[in-house]
This record gives sequence, C-alpha cells and structure tokens, in this order.
Amino acid sequence: LAEDNPRQLYRLVRPLHAADHADLIERYSGRARERLVTVLGRYFDPETLTYLDDRVREEVIPLLDEEVLKLAFQKLESDDAVEILGELDEEEQARLLEVLPESERAIVEEGLNYEDETAGRLMQRELVTVPEHWTVGQTIDFLRTNAALPNSFYDIFVIDPARRPLGKLSLSRLLRTKRPVLVEDIMQTDFHKVPVVMDQEDVAMLFRQYGLVSAPVIDAHDRLLGMITVDDVVEVMNEEAEEDILRLGGVANDDLHGGLLNTTRSRFSWLAVNLVTAILASGVIGAFETTIDKIVALAILMPIVASMGGNAGTQTLTVAVRAISMRELSSTNALKFVIKEMTVGSLNGIMFAIIAAGVCWLWFGDWEIAAVMALAMVINLFVAGLSGTLIPITLERMKVDPAVASTVFLTTVTDVVGFFTFLGLAALFLI
Amino acid sequence: LAEDNPRQLYRLVRPLHAADHADLIERYSGRARERLVTVLGRYFDPETLTYLDDRVREEVIPLLDEEVLKLAFQKLESDDAVEILGELDEEEQARLLEVLPESERAIVEEGLNYEDETAGRLMQRELVTVPEHWTVGQTIDFLRTNAALPNSFYDIFVIDPARRPLGKLSLSRLLRTKRPVLVEDIMQTDFHKVPVVMDQEDVAMLFRQYGLVSAPVIDAHDRLLGMITVDDVVEVMNEEAEEDILRLGGVANDDLHGGLLNTTRSRFSWLAVNLVTAILASGVIGAFETTIDKIVALAILMPIVASMGGNAGTQTLTVAVRAISMRELSSTNALKFVIKEMTVGSLNGIMFAIIAAGVCWLWFGDWEIAAVMALAMVINLFVAGLSGTLIPITLERMKVDPAVASTVFLTTVTDVVGFFTFLGLAALFLI
Repeated sequence: LAEDNPRQLYRLVRPLHAADHADLIERYSGRARERLVTVLGRYFDPETLTYLDDRVREEVIPLLDEEVLKLAFQKLESDDAVEILGELDEEEQARLLEVLPESERAIVEEGLNYEDETAGRLMQRELVTVPEHWTVGQTIDFLRTNAALPNSFYDIFVIDPARRPLGKLSLSRLLRTKRPVLVEDIMQTDFHKVPVVMDQEDVAMLFRQYGLVSAPVIDAHDRLLGMITVDDVVEVMNEEAEEDILRLGGVANDDLHGGLLNTTRSRFSWLAVNLVTAILASGVIGAFETTIDKIVALAILMPIVASMGGNAGTQTLTVAVRAISMRELSSTNALKFVIKEMTVGSLNGIMFAIIAAGVCWLWFGDWEIAAVMALAMVINLFVAGLSGTLIPITLERMKVDPAVASTVFLTTVTDVVGFFTFLGLAALFLI
Repeated sequence: LAEDNPRQLYRLVRPLHAADHADLIERYSGRARERLVTVLGRYFDPETLTYLDDRVREEVIPLLDEEVLKLAFQKLESDDAVEILGELDEEEQARLLEVLPESERAIVEEGLNYEDETAGRLMQRELVTVPEHWTVGQTIDFLRTNAALPNSFYDIFVIDPARRPLGKLSLSRLLRTKRPVLVEDIMQTDFHKVPVVMDQEDVAMLFRQYGLVSAPVIDAHDRLLGMITVDDVVEVMNEEAEEDILRLGGVANDDLHGGLLNTTRSRFSWLAVNLVTAILASGVIGAFETTIDKIVALAILMPIVASMGGNAGTQTLTVAVRAISMRELSSTNALKFVIKEMTVGSLNGIMFAIIAAGVCWLWFGDWEIAAVMALAMVINLFVAGLSGTLIPITLERMKVDPAVASTVFLTTVTDVVGFFTFLGLAALFLI
C-alpha cells in the first residue's frame, strides 16, 4: 500500500485520529515508516507524537522538519511537551528547546527539572483558576472571553491571592448553578492535592482510589503549580501494570519495538543471574552424586519435586507482588497472609504428596522411594508458600521492587530445597 | 482500636471518604469488621459498597439493615447498582431487587440482562442529552433547572428525535461558548460510540487509545442507551491487568481476600496440570536411564539446560502475552516478532553455550560433556524463543486467553526439549 502513490495514501490517512496515525507509524518500519511520515508531512498532527511508543518516537522526530516540530511544540500542552522531550537524548533535547519560543521554553525546562516518574512530570501548566470571591456568572464570562485555556479541563481551581488552592469546582457543578452564586459556596473543599514530588504510582493510586478526573499539583509551600488529568494517569497505570508483568517474567524495559541487540542484551543479564542459580541447584545435586549413582531413579524423579515447588511458589508470589503494588498488602495484614499461604502450601503439599507417591510406586514399584517423594513434596510446598510471601515482603521493606527480584530468589529456594530434601532424605533412608 | 468505644470510633471514621471506609472494612475481618459496619450503621455511605472487593462485599451486605440498603440503592448510579447486584448470588439479588422502587428496579433488571464484562454492564443510564436545535444558553438553563442529573458528567450528548447520538459536546467547550450559539455548531461529530455488546476490554482500549473521559453507549439501532465514564474504565483496566498478571503466574480469580479452602482448591488444579507435565519431563529422563547410570554428571547438569530454556521462554512469552492483550501484536507483525525472538534466543543461546561449557569443563574437566552442554543450550534457547512466541499467538488464534495456558505449554516444551537434547546428545556421542 505504502508503495507508489503518495497522494492517494495521504487522502486515505488524513481523516484518521492522531492515535491511529501513531498506530500506523508503529506498525511499519524502515523505509515504509519514513514514507508514511513524509507523506503526512506538514500536516503531521503534533498529538501523534504523544501517542507514539518512546523508541519509535526517537526515530520519527529526526524525520520531521524543523518548522513542523516548532509548530508541534507550540500546540502541545506542557505535560506532553515535557514527556516527549524528557525521553530524547541530551543533544536532541537541546536542539528542540532552541526551536521553542522563550515562554514555552521556560515552562518546558522547568518541567524537565522535576524528577522522572513524579507528579511534576505528569502535570500540565495550563489550567483554570479563579479567586474565591467570584460568582458563577463571572467565572463563565471569564471562560468565554479568555482564549488561553487548556484544550480540555474538567475542574476549575479556586485559589487565594498567594495561589494556594482553596477548593475544586467541577464543571458539571458550575453549569448547574445560577449565575449570582459565589464559587466559594459551591466549591468542594475536601479535595486531594498532589505534591509535585509525589511518585507517579502514588498519583495513579489516588486517582483510582477516589475516582478523580483531575487534581491540582502543589509545591512545598502549598502553591498551585499545575494540574494532572485522568488521561495521563491512565497512561501511568498502564505503564505500571506493564512493568509488573514484564518484571515478573524476567524482562525489563522491553517490548515489541525494542531493537534486536538491545533486546538480546537486556535478556542476557537476567539469564545470567538464572545461570548462577541453576548452577547452585546443580551443586546441591552434585553433593549427592554417590546417592544418584546407586539409585538412578532419583535422578529421574528429582525434577518433579523442584518443579512443583517452583510453581506453587510462583502462584503465591504473583498474588503477593500484585497485592503489594496495589497497596493492599502492608504490615497490618502481612502476618495473616503469610500464615494463610503457608497453610495453603501445606494442604496442597499433602494432597500432591499422596498423588506423587502413588505415581512413584506405580512407576518404580518401590514404596521407599515413594515415601521419600511424599515427604519431600510436603516440605517443598510448605517452603514455597512461606518464601513466596516472605521474599516479596522482605524486598518491599528493603525498598527493592519485589516484581524485579522475587522470582530468582524464589526459584533458587524451591530448587535448592527441592533437590536437597529429596536427595537428602533418599541418602538418609534408602542407602 | 475497634475494641470498646463505638462512639469514639464513629467520630474517628465518619469524616473519611467512602473509599477509605471500604479500605478499613477490607483490612479487618470477622468480629472487628462486623463492629465497624455496625458502627457506621445508618450513616453507611452507599458509595462504600462500590469500592469494596467482591468477596468482602458479599459478607458486608447481610450485615446492613434493609432500610439502609434501600436508601443506598436509590442513591447509587445505575451502573454501580448493577455492578453490585451482578456479583451477588441469585437469592440475595432477588431480595434486594424487591426492596427497590419500581422505576429503579426496571433499570437495574435491564442492566443485569446485559452480559457480564460488556459495555452494557459498565454504562450508567443517567446522562444529559439535548436536541441539536438548542442553543448553548438553553442548554445551560436546562442544566440549572433540571434536578435529575447524574452526579458528575463531562460531556453532553446531542441527539435526534429517535435518540440517535449526533454529537458529543464537552462541558469545557460548552462553557467557553456564547449563549446564542447552537449546540450543533460546536459539537464534536467524529466521536466514538460504544455498542452495548462491546467487550469491556475493547471499551478500555478505546478510552486509552483516544484519551476519552466519557463515551455514549448505543444499541443495535444506533439509539443512545447510556454512557460510560472514565472512572469505570479505570476499574476495568485494573481488573484486566490483574487478570493477566495472575494468570501468567498460574493463579485465577485469586487475591488476598480469598478464603483458605477456595484458594487451596483454585491453586490445586493448576498444580495438577503442572504435575502431569513434570512427570512427562521425567519420562524423558527415564528413557535415558542407562546413559545417566553410566555418566552421573549428566544428572547433575541436566537441570541447567531445562532451567535456562524455561526462563528464556518465559521472557519471550511475557512480552508476547502483554503485546497481545494491548492489541499490539497481530497477524501483520507476528512473523517479524517470531523471527526477532528466534534470533534473540539463538544469540543468547550461543553466548550461554560458551559460558555453560566453560563451567562444565572447569567442574568435571571433560570437554565432551562441555560440548554436549553447549549444543543442547543453543538448541533449547532457540526453541524457547520460537515457542515463547508461537504458543501465545496460536492460543490467541484459537480464541483461548494466552495468559492462562501459555506458561504450562511453554515449560513443558522447554523441559522436554532441554532434557531430550542434552541426554540424547550425550547418549549419541559419549557412550
């Protein structure tokens, strides 16, 4: 399709939404992508940039010409401009900043000063504020005559002369009220203020917990700096959920759009850690070399114990990591959770001990091996329940993201304990 | 705290937001929870019910008295009422429906008729509509005089006489416009309509893709039925992300609040599947019993190959499952992704082949075992990359949720291939 007729392509693509443009650009690569961007050319919708994946965006920006970029950054709201610039490298950043007009540049540079993944990066500076002594009528007239309003907003913030937010007024409330009423009489006074240094995960939690659509951002002196709207928060929730899923799967910062070598490298480090733990587990097996040499059936059966422990532990771990990142698991209910998971592990341990012992007996006709299998299974599933809860809780206390490191620790524990108990019990009772 | 002074507790708890009440109720259990609910008593905020976890809600509803419930359901918006009722068992549902006044009951019953997890269940019936020939002034006056408005809304829908939506008008646009202007001149005509049967996951995708705050829901004849607002969609996104994370971890419908026996049972079935695959892998080892009997070092080293394959495969799988659920991986780019992951697997396979062979050589001083290890590692990591992509893509085509079943299939493949290549190559070359 993107082959030969740029005019036809243009007519086809033009009426689509910026988000769809972004999708198209992401879907193609190399020459086809270049052609697409060039065809969109001067009509390239600046919003498209905000919808693009970081990695793709880095490739697209150099394709756009300076005039288009300049226009783009003027049209974008400050949070989007900061987001886009924040993910470019220093050199590109400096080049784009120079293109911006003075006033824009100051705002964007300030935004870039806030730390990554904080409220400061998410907020937009464009917002609507009114003093508390205004009436509904005055407010509406102000909105009708003021050209420099944000593209869309859902709440108006009532401030005092020092720009401290006094209240929040939803547009639906404003519209429902008669003109002579004072805004201070209808504003909501118990609203949530977001400190500019708040972590974006906490911001997302706040929005979800209280069903917010927008919230004011304040500095250390309680002065209003900007606002965060729900669409930005939706992006954050999405990112945070993605981070958890990927980290639990042993991948970091990785997606469909990553380059081949970067992907290989980022996977490598995790696999390297796994190799060390696998060698550790093999070391445990090695310690029982003579035992295995005598009863080769042990070598055949030992992976079952380790695998069941690993899986049972992962189940517990997943629930724990999700609960921690949703702030549902904390010191008040941690003990209860640990006890529950230990019990679940033991109960399933007993059931699978019976089943696995039956399989062993049928397979090798040796009740002694079956008994060792049963005992090792109960122990390993109990340990799995215990470490599946304790590992993430401990990591969280040590301020390490439990999604990143829990899985390695857990499988190391269940492998080592699995091999050690099974082979150890065999060495003790069967030889 | 919840011990002896109900009046003091009441004073402490009263000023909190409904969402915080819900949190408190979730955090305690048994007698303490009962006491908390009783203390909140007549002042129990109906919104609290919407914030509670399903399982906890089922326990709380019987604690409330009928009058409070009746009042609660009158205050709730229709989507919340439907959500709460939809998760109760039939008997309880019927009891609560009887309590509702005629008009409410009809709406809620209709809502319950839509299938679970569709737009019909998410939408609220309360919304604001105006005919296209109205002016901004008329619209504002209508809002000021009409008492039966939704609690909060962000868009107004412009409809024709047959209730077909013609346009969408954001409140910020409405407020910015002078009174004599016609709504049809400022309404947005290229807006997204949600069919009532649309899956909630697709609704969430639509809201995220286009940064929506509300969207109209239509029936098969393009007639307006209700609206969906972003706060409900945030809940859905959260649920869907949770589902993916938990299913990848081998847990379904499970969280902190699940009962002990239910948790044990739900974990059991997954572990049972894993036991079967573990026995399958052991069967492969069993086929090489005589080989292991001759070289016991093979038994020590074989878990390394299987474990590396399982981990590399899980990395690929996680990226694939996430991309599928974000609708980023489809038939147009599947081949490209499969080739990339195969290449990543092979590259890492080569590197780890060298490292692992080095370890073998140092450990056992046998270059033949080292060579077998290297070859098996390359093959298994290549297979891991291939099956980590093909398994979820195939499951998706077969309309099976790839998050649920991929992990078992994958680890079966990498275990079987890992043991088979390592032991098979050893049997071929070393004996």
